Amino acid sequence: MIRVVQWGCGAMGSGMLALVLKKKGLQLVGAVDSRPALIGRDVGEHLGISGKVGVAIRADGGRVLAETRPDIVLLATSSFTQEVVEPLRRIAGQGADAITIAEEMAMPRVKSPELARQLQDLAVQQGITILGTGINPGFVLDTLIIALTGVCQAVTAIEASRVNDLSPYGPAVMKTQGIGLTPAAFARGVQDGTVVGHIGFAESIAMLDAKLNLAIDEVVETKAPIVSHVARETRYVKVAPGMVAGCHHTARGMRRGQAVITLNHPQQILPHLENVPTGDYITIRGKPDLHMKIEPEIPGGVGTVALAVNMIPAVIASAPGLKMMADMPVPYCLPNTAETET
Amino acid sequence: MIRVVQWGCGAMGSGMLALVLKKKGLQLVGAVDSRPALIGRDVGEHLGISGKVGVAIRADGGRVLAETRPDIVLLATSSFTQEVVEPLRRIAGQGADAITIAEEMAMPRVKSPELARQLQDLAVQQGITILGTGINPGFVLDTLIIALTGVCQAVTAIEASRVNDLSPYGPAVMKTQGIGLTPAAFARGVQDGTVVGHIGFAESIAMLDAKLNLAIDEVVETKAPIVSHVARETRYVKVAPGMVAGCHHTARGMRRGQAVITLNHPQQILPHLENVPTGDYITIRGKPDLHMKIEPEIPGGVGTVALAVNMIPAVIASAPGLKMMADMPVPYCLPNTAETET
Repeated sequence: MIRVVQWGCGAMGSGMLALVLKKKGLQLVGAVDSRPALIGRDVGEHLGISGKVGVAIRADGGRVLAETRPDIVLLATSSFTQEVVEPLRRIAGQGADAITIAEEMAMPRVKSPELARQLQDLAVQQGITILGTGINPGFVLDTLIIALTGVCQAVTAIEASRVNDLSPYGPAVMKTQGIGLTPAAFARGVQDGTVVGHIGFAESIAMLDAKLNLAIDEVVETKAPIVSHVARETRYVKVAPGMVAGCHHTARGMRRGQAVITLNHPQQILPHLENVPTGDYITIRGKPDLHMKIEPEIPGGVGTVALAVNMIPAVIASAPGLKMMADMPVPYCLPNTAETET
Repeated sequence: MIRVVQWGCGAMGSGMLALVLKKKGLQLVGAVDSRPALIGRDVGEHLGISGKVGVAIRADGGRVLAETRPDIVLLATSSFTQEVVEPLRRIAGQGADAITIAEEMAMPRVKSPELARQLQDLAVQQGITILGTGINPGFVLDTLIIALTGVCQAVTAIEASRVNDLSPYGPAVMKTQGIGLTPAAFARGVQDGTVVGHIGFAESIAMLDAKLNLAIDEVVETKAPIVSHVARETRYVKVAPGMVAGCHHTARGMRRGQAVITLNHPQQILPHLENVPTGDYITIRGKPDLHMKIEPEIPGGVGTVALAVNMIPAVIASAPGLKMMADMPVPYCLPNTAETET
């Protein structure tokens, strides 16, 4: 049995907790979260499943690690390398492997080269593995594209889009995507940094370039408002015609002024109201050209939770170091226990 | 530089020779083929490229290995484990890794469990790696499906189809697919084993089951004639309306009498004449359901050649043993040298 601690028990972390409990060969030995409302609760109670799991959520990560001695920790507390480096140091210090869904950790050297070097050195020194993963960055716009190029004799350009529906998400996501704003307020938000869009383009492009050697010398991003022509409404936001229903965020990986990688990620609420199909789309130009479609898109939350848990045995088996998804073995769905087989 | 010997210089082997010459970090040091017309020819002459490569095709594989001391050998001589085991023994004896496109070697334990055990023991003993790969089996109907399940929390069933066009292929393929026969002659050919259809279904299903733990207890295959409604003609075969234009080969991986994996591979000439689109299609049932399309299909020859060459560094870096594609790192397109960049 692989001993697992879940660090961070929010929306994503709760999904991981539930999935760890279903997987053959994994044993949940600890759960960490600092939110007062969660501290002391049994994981079963927290997840709303019948019966106690026998693991209580506790605030002191260091103590949980020391007492439970996990083989691996799933870390779901933040999107940013700077904010996960401290828990990662504690985990490494305890000799445990780590998987984090922090978007920047898909390729931490992009935003935090010095921290990435430190984490790499620490991992090797402690003989542990650290992996950043998630649906995007981590899979749709990087690892999956890379895997498809395995059948290519040459790759000259990549174009990929992830068109999704943000309707299930809450007020925080609405705000960072500028949903419900006027186009003018959206433009100001892009300027002042409050309209964030997608976190992970630079990381995906760096991962593609690391494997495919495309000599990218610049990444250019644009954020445009998706102005709605119809009224759209979710539990958390109302968008009148003429207002912003989403953020069309794009990134181009440039080589000497030419776009070699083009990634599109228009994120909005209720795209079907304007007959916009959702899906994941990959075009690889080279020998041969390839055109891939997944419709509808791989659901982000379900996929991120799945990847974090499914990568556990590969991370346990991996040589020490700070890894990217494209360096790992082909991912796969871990078998569930007989009782939880659907 | 990784020193490469190409063993088998037919259609696929020639593609590999050409691609090895284009890839950064690979050095072609030898070429083996026993066909009298090829022996002694420079590889450049054989490929019809300008200039000599400086490597002549030779018949004696053992001598080529001993004299060139390759790091790895690409073996493209046969579809069957029984027919590649002897060259694999020689390659292992020389301490070189091997990649073969023999379809059965994608999962050799399915058809030749005893030989697979011997090859595994030999590989470990010699400290070398042996990998079977190719577009199918090896990628479309196994590795790619497995990679997609990485975003799944549960997998309950798999349905996948590869719909392709056999028009470029020669008389040997027409015969093994029963193309140009009457439906009655096709049925007799299925009975007497001359209509072979696709080689690799059992291997793909075994690979899926090895990773996804689907408890498959039986594989059921069917071969039906694709009877043409129109006249179809290629360089090698003429099909009148009412005659057989291809073989619709299917396989089902059963668990207690129920199909858990369904693989379809209708192979025919000129499917567009009856408005049949070609493509690779994957549906995964579980959490979530996933629907993937690649249209048109990944071209078989180009893809098989690419995979064999692209997997070289991963096989070199791998721990010793007999490996399947799903155990290897995520495949990717190796960079070409600056001169051959397209």
